[in-house]
Amino acid sequence: MLTANYVGARNIEIHHRDPEPLRDGQVRVEVAYAGICGTDLHIFHGHMDSRVRTPAVIGHEMSGRIADIGGGVTGWKVGDHVTVMPLRWDGTCPGCLAGHQHICQNLDFVGIDSPGALQRFWNVDADILVALPDSLRLDHAALVEPVAVAVHDVRRGEVAAGDHVVVLGGGPIGVLIATVARHAGAKVAVVELDEGRRSAIAKLGFEVLDPTESDQVDWVTTWTSGAGADIAFEVSGAASAMLAATDLVKVRGTVVVVAIHPQPRPVNLQRVFWRELRLLGARVYERTDFERAIELLDEGAIPADALISSIRPITDTAGAFADLEAGKAMKVLIDLGADGESK
Amino acid sequence: MLTANYVGARNIEIHHRDPEPLRDGQVRVEVAYAGICGTDLHIFHGHMDSRVRTPAVIGHEMSGRIADIGGGVTGWKVGDHVTVMPLRWDGTCPGCLAGHQHICQNLDFVGIDSPGALQRFWNVDADILVALPDSLRLDHAALVEPVAVAVHDVRRGEVAAGDHVVVLGGGPIGVLIATVARHAGAKVAVVELDEGRRSAIAKLGFEVLDPTESDQVDWVTTWTSGAGADIAFEVSGAASAMLAATDLVKVRGTVVVVAIHPQPRPVNLQRVFWRELRLLGARVYERTDFERAIELLDEGAIPADALISSIRPITDTAGAFADLEAGKAMKVLIDLGADGESK
Ligand SMILES: [Zn+2]
Ligand SMILES: [Zn+2]
Repeated sequence: MLTANYVGARNIEIHHRDPEPLRDGQVRVEVAYAGICGTDLHIFHGHMDSRVRTPAVIGHEMSGRIADIGGGVTGWKVGDHVTVMPLRWDGTCPGCLAGHQHICQNLDFVGIDSPGALQRFWNVDADILVALPDSLRLDHAALVEPVAVAVHDVRRGEVAAGDHVVVLGGGPIGVLIATVARHAGAKVAVVELDEGRRSAIAKLGFEVLDPTESDQVDWVTTWTSGAGADIAFEVSGAASAMLAATDLVKVRGTVVVVAIHPQPRPVNLQRVFWRELRLLGARVYERTDFERAIELLDEGAIPADALISSIRPITDTAGAFADLEAGKAMKVLIDLGADGESK
Repeated sequence: MLTANYVGARNIEIHHRDPEPLRDGQVRVEVAYAGICGTDLHIFHGHMDSRVRTPAVIGHEMSGRIADIGGGVTGWKVGDHVTVMPLRWDGTCPGCLAGHQHICQNLDFVGIDSPGALQRFWNVDADILVALPDSLRLDHAALVEPVAVAVHDVRRGEVAAGDHVVVLGGGPIGVLIATVARHAGAKVAVVELDEGRRSAIAKLGFEVLDPTESDQVDWVTTWTSGAGADIAFEVSGAASAMLAATDLVKVRGTVVVVAIHPQPRPVNLQRVFWRELRLLGARVYERTDFERAIELLDEGAIPADALISSIRPITDTAGAFADLEAGKAMKVLIDLGADGESK
């Protein structure tokens, strides 16, 4: 089979390799599609070299079919459509013991800290498999993981019907948050710098703001009849967006911090104090979020076709990264079925 | 009567003045004691000149007795011991309509935005009076307002029995938060730079840390067996404390922002994201907090005598500000009964 390997900054190599032997407790998944995300791009840029062991088969967004079942595994059969919730916790740290396994203090993020899905046959522990309905197309199912992120973020922000929600940053996660929030009954505006993205987001029926064209705080104040937004999601990672986020939410409003901000960022704590705001970090997902994401995709609530910008063969994984780097693509999938290898 | 007036930066003047005529709906309170707090010190330094109309009779922490009752006021009698909850809201803004009157978008903070308690006879609207039990000494009762701040902060942080709580900043509000949190069953550590304050806080039985002597994050990690604190209260206003606050709380822990940070402060949003932290602004109090503060003072749960550093006559209001400025005093009271005027 072919595997896509991160070997160092800006360097992806395609290696021929035999599938790993299947161990007890594992299932061999024939990967159908794998998505490339912002975290993979961080890895590609060399920003996570301290965490990634090269050559690293990365990839943690995927869909596939069960190809083989290891000893001691029950409840699955060959051919089942599955995805993987790529989190492995220790179960013993204070975070886990308090019930927050998904953000375990010693979390193994599969596809970053251990081998991922950019290989045709991928052996995974059976306990991180999640079943997919046959009715859900496998290309769409490769979006389950990012949709689960959005489901988790919207749940963490306690978005309710009728809420005014502002999403700062209209990349794939921002658009998914906007979609899930709207599906929950919220009115949603997305703030995005890139014109191409803005027009794609407008086509999905959202209010869209160019922060360089209009004063977003004024706009939101008017939009909400003077109150401010109920919830803002900071998905951009930009310092200016974090400053805007606190200024555009209402008294006792919520700011959900979804983006990665590598350096400490200035936050308007005077506003946090003055309006008794709530800032919440939101990271990855719990199993319930994964299951809800599958439901939403299966019922067509997520504009999967609009979000999938391109599908490339594994041999062109480098091209997928180039698409993402150009900042225009929403979601790029790798088609693992098309690797041209007999096994 | 005598009145203490802020007339410009670092300038307090004592003016003779006749009491204002009493209007319908008002009560004339003979002020017994008024406390001077950090906000008053900000005013004294000229930092709030855009908000304060000079000459300004300031003061919003007080206790007293009803001296006269205006038309249409029921439920009170001359001689009743009272304090004032110094908030006047408009009742019509989105914040009020959502039930958060205490942080009304157009709040009138009595003693800042309108005349305060540094006068022997103070006319206040009857609806902001709060009854005091006769069993509570009036000097102790002058602490009701700052204790209500602490009650509100601890309630907002959802402190529970057994929690590990860190208070960053051991001034009067920090010590009151520590006291109220301990009364709720929490284990409490206070981080404070000033040696004199540290020794006073240690005498009250709290764990005390000098952040320049020991690594507070390491200390808290050990103290909490690797988990991190459940809740940190940022009461110091220091940039370094805000950075420490996120680093020393547990997975899904809470940081309550109590201090005023005039400029946006760097916040470790990566940590907020990584541990799914919650940052909460907490400002002033609701009536339930005032009532709880009175109960706590009345039952002796607050070390009022240890907190009251000095009591000065109104003629020495400037001396009270000097005490506070020196950074050694916890709480300085003005004794309004000792103004030497016949009316
Ligand atoms: Zn764990
Ligand atoms: Zn209001």
